Amino acid sequence: MPPSLILSRRDLEFLLHEWLDVEGLVERPRYAEHSRETFDAVLDLAERIATEHFAPHNRTADEHEPRMVDGRVQLVPEVADALRVFADAGLMAGEFDEEYGGMQLPHTVGQAVFAWFKAANVGTAAYPFLTMANARLLLAHGSEEQKATYVRPMVEGRWFGTMALSEPQAGSSLADITTRAERQDDGSYRLTGNKTWISAGDHELTENIVHLVLAKVPGGPPGVKGISLFVVPKVLPAGDGSLGERNDVVLAGLNHKMGYRGTTNTLLNFGEGVHTPGGRAGAVGFLVGEEHRGLTYMFTMMNEARIGVGMGATALGYTGYLHALEYARTRTQGRPPTDRDPTTPPVRIVEHTDVRRMLLAAKSYVEGGLALGLYCARLVDEEQTAESTDDRGRARLLLEVLTPIAKSWPSQWGLVADDLAIQVHGGYGYTRDHAVEQFYRDNRLNPIHEGTAGIQGLDLLGRKVVMQGGAGLVLLGETIAATTARAAGTEWAAHAADLDALVARLGAVTATLWGAGDPAVTLANATYYLEAAGHVVVGWLWLEQALATGGRTSDFHEGKRAAARYFHRYELPTVHTRLDLLESLDRTVLDTPERWL
Amino acid sequence: MPPSLILSRRDLEFLLHEWLDVEGLVERPRYAEHSRETFDAVLDLAERIATEHFAPHNRTADEHEPRMVDGRVQLVPEVADALRVFADAGLMAGEFDEEYGGMQLPHTVGQAVFAWFKAANVGTAAYPFLTMANARLLLAHGSEEQKATYVRPMVEGRWFGTMALSEPQAGSSLADITTRAERQDDGSYRLTGNKTWISAGDHELTENIVHLVLAKVPGGPPGVKGISLFVVPKVLPAGDGSLGERNDVVLAGLNHKMGYRGTTNTLLNFGEGVHTPGGRAGAVGFLVGEEHRGLTYMFTMMNEARIGVGMGATALGYTGYLHALEYARTRTQGRPPTDRDPTTPPVRIVEHTDVRRMLLAAKSYVEGGLALGLYCARLVDEEQTAESTDDRGRARLLLEVLTPIAKSWPSQWGLVADDLAIQVHGGYGYTRDHAVEQFYRDNRLNPIHEGTAGIQGLDLLGRKVVMQGGAGLVLLGETIAATTARAAGTEWAAHAADLDALVARLGAVTATLWGAGDPAVTLANATYYLEAAGHVVVGWLWLEQALATGGRTSDFHEGKRAAARYFHRYELPTVHTRLDLLESLDRTVLDTPERWL
Repeated sequence: MPPSLILSRRDLEFLLHEWLDVEGLVERPRYAEHSRETFDAVLDLAERIATEHFAPHNRTADEHEPRMVDGRVQLVPEVADALRVFADAGLMAGEFDEEYGGMQLPHTVGQAVFAWFKAANVGTAAYPFLTMANARLLLAHGSEEQKATYVRPMVEGRWFGTMALSEPQAGSSLADITTRAERQDDGSYRLTGNKTWISAGDHELTENIVHLVLAKVPGGPPGVKGISLFVVPKVLPAGDGSLGERNDVVLAGLNHKMGYRGTTNTLLNFGEGVHTPGGRAGAVGFLVGEEHRGLTYMFTMMNEARIGVGMGATALGYTGYLHALEYARTRTQGRPPTDRDPTTPPVRIVEHTDVRRMLLAAKSYVEGGLALGLYCARLVDEEQTAESTDDRGRARLLLEVLTPIAKSWPSQWGLVADDLAIQVHGGYGYTRDHAVEQFYRDNRLNPIHEGTAGIQGLDLLGRKVVMQGGAGLVLLGETIAATTARAAGTEWAAHAADLDALVARLGAVTATLWGAGDPAVTLANATYYLEAAGHVVVGWLWLEQALATGGRTSDFHEGKRAAARYFHRYELPTVHTRLDLLESLDRTVLDTPERWL
Repeated sequence: MPPSLILSRRDLEFLLHEWLDVEGLVERPRYAEHSRETFDAVLDLAERIATEHFAPHNRTADEHEPRMVDGRVQLVPEVADALRVFADAGLMAGEFDEEYGGMQLPHTVGQAVFAWFKAANVGTAAYPFLTMANARLLLAHGSEEQKATYVRPMVEGRWFGTMALSEPQAGSSLADITTRAERQDDGSYRLTGNKTWISAGDHELTENIVHLVLAKVPGGPPGVKGISLFVVPKVLPAGDGSLGERNDVVLAGLNHKMGYRGTTNTLLNFGEGVHTPGGRAGAVGFLVGEEHRGLTYMFTMMNEARIGVGMGATALGYTGYLHALEYARTRTQGRPPTDRDPTTPPVRIVEHTDVRRMLLAAKSYVEGGLALGLYCARLVDEEQTAESTDDRGRARLLLEVLTPIAKSWPSQWGLVADDLAIQVHGGYGYTRDHAVEQFYRDNRLNPIHEGTAGIQGLDLLGRKVVMQGGAGLVLLGETIAATTARAAGTEWAAHAADLDALVARLGAVTATLWGAGDPAVTLANATYYLEAAGHVVVGWLWLEQALATGGRTSDFHEGKRAAARYFHRYELPTVHTRLDLLESLDRTVLDTPERWL
């Protein structure tokens, strides 16, 4: 069998076993039933189902995007077929507790498993992705009754889930949502309002859809402190496990996107009176946790979703890279510029240095992104199962700092990998006869949803690096220093020293920025700060990978070292330029009023 | 009337009149009939026709891409309507000689005029773009008979033209084309072969299509030195001005693209025997100039086409920027991060610093790109009409050096401007309800066609900066130095000094690269060299624009200076990082064999 163009199993093996020691997790009680063999088996299963059931309809679902017919969402039938196979294989349940029929896989393995589906068909993979995140939120914050009612059907793949946050006038700014939830005598609530950008918001794939909805209870505080979270099922459970009345949640329209078309994206109206549960209008919702704490709960899901978006961006870049590599190995064209003899046969384009440069760049982005995503997943496992409270706390803190980067960095550079994949294909890459143009269109969503790059920059510089007196940034620096220390005396020592210098500068620049005395100045170039920090983190993870190759000389390990060198030589130096600008407290943008644009 | 979202007339006025002194050209005999008033009138006309006839079907043509029905190409009818208005207004003839019914506009004005159509609807604009380039090539290299037969109908818009270079196995590498042209007793040739990527290669818009085809005459030298150029009309002219037999040129299929869909892109088979002109198979072609010199002639058209592609990329970026600016001025969302009070009303997003940063960045790219394109057009005017041979020669030399940059720089950064335009729109920008996603898809073609970025890099570093003993680079350096000298004593002196330092480094790095003694090493990072040189050139043109504002303090002039500052502070410093890498003669990619990828 030729190597997969979806994802590299060899790379996953390297990251999981030669680097992250996932096998070591089986010593912890939660994963005691597992072993290298069970991990391998589920990865085999994921590769097979992604290859046989997800990848084949990736283009079909793009060409025949979801349509609204008689108030229902019509999808190509392959989507339902693939998701049935996915759920039947137990993959929806992968990371969940045994009591819910789950496999209790470590999150690191779960993320590696799921990367196969995102790379094969991100549009179809979004349905389980959202469902699993929804179920995890309810497990964390829902009542026992909510868990019993909603989690099991989702883990079994019989119901799917959504997150319904945005409204037409409130996307990045959730403080301004206007959906209202009024408390009823029986403890339930009735919701009224309009939501948009709801992925998987309606469809016929499952008999029910569990919406997690942000809304405001009248009388609460203004802004984000007055947001509460509700479970609003499309069909109300009857109590005996069967389905009851249709809830007053109505599909109001579909958004038509440039890419990511397989995932239907909807406008939903709550409480329009189209349906009348209990004999009257209003969408019935059930409060999760306490009133006014909804955004905090939602962040459980959003942080997971952010890292997941980053993984999706990496996966799309990764498959783009593999397609480009395959094309470059088979397509012949021209001769090296040093060969002036037109009678020599044309070479395969991978022999052109500039094509190899593009491939090596893409490799450094997608393998760097995968390392970042799996490292964060490993931190989730630490946070949840490390023995000492201290270790769990450190993992949580590091994860807090890394989350905006894990979301934004692959969203930026995975897209560049797909851009390079098109460029390697030349004109063919621009046609719909090849897969790469779709990856590029699909991937363009990732810098937008689950918090734009601008939002992530404000999160990192405005919150994460200053929280707890800057403890997160200090911890990141210590963690990186532990890596660079291991590089002493190796061929990586010079690169490690460069990285140490960058980390030191990043800390100093952070202090300078926050010493400016004016938050508007501090935050003016937060997106640049995010980019600089992202490159430092990925440069560190490339050093980690290079060290993890040990002295092994297989082509695979040589390739890891080549990509690490590439990233350190071509990419990391750009960080200094960014830091120079940040250090200068540049006011160019601040001092440019709107009327000059 | 609200300001146009297609292009900025104010900016064109600034570039043409406050900077490039286009009015000064009317002192030359060729343009003696012109005046500021005639230039303004044709720009008015262009804006009106672009607005009323091109922009309205931009999305329609994208949604209903050309289809092949019964062997014919079916386009939405708006394309033909728009092009009729365009030709009837005399715009096809704009720059051509009066003897062909033309207006003899300076090329600088002609490019400004045409930018309106590219920005309004690049897919429809491609038909006249190719036709005008085709006609100009025949005027430069065709026989009197060829000019009489083909140029006038094209200038009148009755026939359209194409350039047919690529073949399925030979795109970037024209040395490997296999289309054969056999000389006939009557002096004509019969062509046999398959061409692909032929934009506007077949359609029902005009009664005839004039293909300029590269082919090899048997017995000629191998490689590019054996390529000849032929006129191959779809329908053979009968000699009396009427149309005669159908030529043996057959539409073999359409390419389906990610964007730029309004321009049909075709596979054409020559000499398949479907038609039998003169009673037998074989496409009848007429040699242009001499045998085996075809690629030289074609470069007349390709250099023009390359600058034109750059202008198209700028135009698409420009309209993207204007759409984003308009959106940012009207869409409200959130509050500045310094405003923690959720009860204050949301602000228009242009008030968010990061949104203004994106807009200022995009402005610096698209206005910089427009300055570059019009500067090159001004050089074309100099090359063709300057009084002294010396001035014409200098213009030609500078244009040679700038052409790969004028093609590639806007193709890269105009696309970034469209990327930023999507980002400013947030989720809405990713939907097909807004225009910007199409600009982004359309613009992605530009780094590919008319020579990929990789090809332009080899052209610049491998040919242009070393031709004539490096005279082109020296001339560029002198030209930039003349600008920086003017900055002495102004607020721009420090930026000018930084630019001087970059120019000096660029020269030194060029010497280092060519001193490496191994062309493979010299050229390994040619694309990086191209990017570095491109930023230096645009940095220079931003300094030019800043100086051209004089001390004027209108919002428009303040905006020019703000964008100049932005480019110098945010963008130019990245050049040093590129030059560091080039200077080190880095071998990372060269030393990475294929098997490590």
